[in-house]
Amino acid sequence: VINQSLVGLIEACMASDRVEGIYGAHRGIQGILDEDFYDLSNELPENLEGVAVTPCAALRSIRKKPTHDDCERVLEVFQAHNVRYFFYIGGNDSAETALILNKVAVAEGYDIRLFHVPKTVDNDLLVTDHCPGYGSAARFVALALMGDNEDNRSLPGIKVDVIMGRDAGWLTAASRLARTREEDGPHLIYVPERVFDMDSFLGDVEDAYKKYGRCLIAVSEGIHDAQGQLIAKSKETDAFGNQQLSGSGALGDQLVSQIKKLGDGLRVRADTFGYLQRSFFGIVSKLDCEEAREVGHAAVRFATEGDAPHGSVVIQRDGEGMNYTPRYELAAIHEVARNTKVLEERYIVGDNGICESFLDYVAPLVGELPHSTRLSAVRVPKKLE
Amino acid sequence: VINQSLVGLIEACMASDRVEGIYGAHRGIQGILDEDFYDLSNELPENLEGVAVTPCAALRSIRKKPTHDDCERVLEVFQAHNVRYFFYIGGNDSAETALILNKVAVAEGYDIRLFHVPKTVDNDLLVTDHCPGYGSAARFVALALMGDNEDNRSLPGIKVDVIMGRDAGWLTAASRLARTREEDGPHLIYVPERVFDMDSFLGDVEDAYKKYGRCLIAVSEGIHDAQGQLIAKSKETDAFGNQQLSGSGALGDQLVSQIKKLGDGLRVRADTFGYLQRSFFGIVSKLDCEEAREVGHAAVRFATEGDAPHGSVVIQRDGEGMNYTPRYELAAIHEVARNTKVLEERYIVGDNGICESFLDYVAPLVGELPHSTRLSAVRVPKKLE
Repeated sequence: VINQSLVGLIEACMASDRVEGIYGAHRGIQGILDEDFYDLSNELPENLEGVAVTPCAALRSIRKKPTHDDCERVLEVFQAHNVRYFFYIGGNDSAETALILNKVAVAEGYDIRLFHVPKTVDNDLLVTDHCPGYGSAARFVALALMGDNEDNRSLPGIKVDVIMGRDAGWLTAASRLARTREEDGPHLIYVPERVFDMDSFLGDVEDAYKKYGRCLIAVSEGIHDAQGQLIAKSKETDAFGNQQLSGSGALGDQLVSQIKKLGDGLRVRADTFGYLQRSFFGIVSKLDCEEAREVGHAAVRFATEGDAPHGSVVIQRDGEGMNYTPRYELAAIHEVARNTKVLEERYIVGDNGICESFLDYVAPLVGELPHSTRLSAVRVPKKLE
Repeated sequence: VINQSLVGLIEACMASDRVEGIYGAHRGIQGILDEDFYDLSNELPENLEGVAVTPCAALRSIRKKPTHDDCERVLEVFQAHNVRYFFYIGGNDSAETALILNKVAVAEGYDIRLFHVPKTVDNDLLVTDHCPGYGSAARFVALALMGDNEDNRSLPGIKVDVIMGRDAGWLTAASRLARTREEDGPHLIYVPERVFDMDSFLGDVEDAYKKYGRCLIAVSEGIHDAQGQLIAKSKETDAFGNQQLSGSGALGDQLVSQIKKLGDGLRVRADTFGYLQRSFFGIVSKLDCEEAREVGHAAVRFATEGDAPHGSVVIQRDGEGMNYTPRYELAAIHEVARNTKVLEERYIVGDNGICESFLDYVAPLVGELPHSTRLSAVRVPKKLE
């Protein structure tokens, strides 16, 4: 939903009489350094609506932390184009970029209002109740697990689903939405907030398999041992030398190879959701779209009408349940930058469970989900032996 | 959409005055051997509608090829319950099970009408124009690639997406739907109908990366070398001798490790769509649902009103384009069993392309897709050097 926020920013800037022109930097900070801007002042509303529902940054993205020299160059470019409002969309790394830039601007006395606009499927920003992008990615995870639960029930075995989240288990925890009956999976959920112990894991898998006749497992890509070493990085099964987490099936395949040792002929499989969960076309939470759009509007409101010269937009909830009211506030960028908000302790049960109260948190963000239905299942009496 | 066909069968049997009771075998042939049946005669319509939209076999599944003794036992069970109509839903392995069973029934003079009802996401059944299940899985693949194309565009690199299809490239070819602009991916599509040569592959990837500044690649899990050896190997096989391919990230990771040799610092990732493409909750083609339901109706019609004592239901198209009319016919089971219909030659371009005419075939099955929208992208003139 990142483009919902972009369109929210553009719309609100178009509507403000304080804004004379709207530029979009091509690839974030890199585009500013290259003086590579799109003029967004004349985008047509219909086109913007199309952009808003297209996944992944329409202005394209970058992984770059600016140096002090970079910041000097940015201010020079801003000066040349008389840029006086600046909005940077992204997660805690993007907030850090905004923070670094803001520090230099303040030190140099460059007059600018600079805001971080939150977006991360990881949901790991501090201060805010939740992050735009999370509800839609969590919806993907919930629907995937709901379907996979049916698949695992139809053709029983042990199935591992590896879900994004290096440092925080928010997205993996959303798999809990698929469990609407006691027998439904995921039967085990592993998040990076807990130390992952392979022996305990194998014991838990064996127990669940005995209990349910099958076992569906959700695992964060970021699970690690007591020393903080990623399980995915272990030399044991790093078959192809890949070190990154997403975009590799290494962790899933490693867990499968361990689980297979539990017994001959066990049907064990792994899927790694990878980039699908952050980019799949059309799987979005309606509320997430609305909030992402509104976060853009709010950022412009804070910038053009508020007192604060800089900040990070945060969302708070008023009321509970499916129809809470979101409230948009401002936090200091330094409170949000770099650091990670991990999954709250109160949501985690033991080593491998997410408690029901988490559903109150996540369900409104994800929106209504379909229901799986069983046959009424009256057994026919046997007539033979 | 397998449960659409199941519900179609149940509905049509309920409506037929030739049918006195409706049993569902729990886990296919295994349930018959175990005399393990559900009585489906009194399922409520509302519940059936819920079952119809729930993914994966509601009666649960099995991979089992019956022996002659098994078939004798099946007939004994059928006799005990006076089973005179039999419908078996599935792909070419299920058709083979139906064929084996039918041969024994005919030899023994057991009076039964026995039909294979097609369902496979692989779309690889002979005779039929297309298979129920394919349109919905192809829709998943198209939406995944459309999103991944945006992701790959936003943060450029080389991305490999591994798609189901051991012997036939139908599902992988559906990735072609994501390519609505010349610059869109997938830029390269590899299907098992072509020999996969690693050196040619790496050369093609390098060329595409030079041309587009990024490269999105769709690969069938079943790609193999000139000797027919799978590029991804697994020791595990099922009862029909099929090697396990899905549920592992091995092929994707192997291709990534090869591609990384093309240059230091290349951003190379792989995702393996795995079981998501056949079980994801809610991603279905409307037409596929309707046809899957109707295939069930047609099977009962053939069984109770037709002359043929056995057969496999096939779908043919009348007319072209998005609004063709499906026609339901009967083929001999032996024409459908075991064998595979590979992707037609006329749809394949060179070693790694799917031609535009394939879209005429696949687009109606998948249904309308969303559109990605670009900013109008007017560059701002530079003011600095």
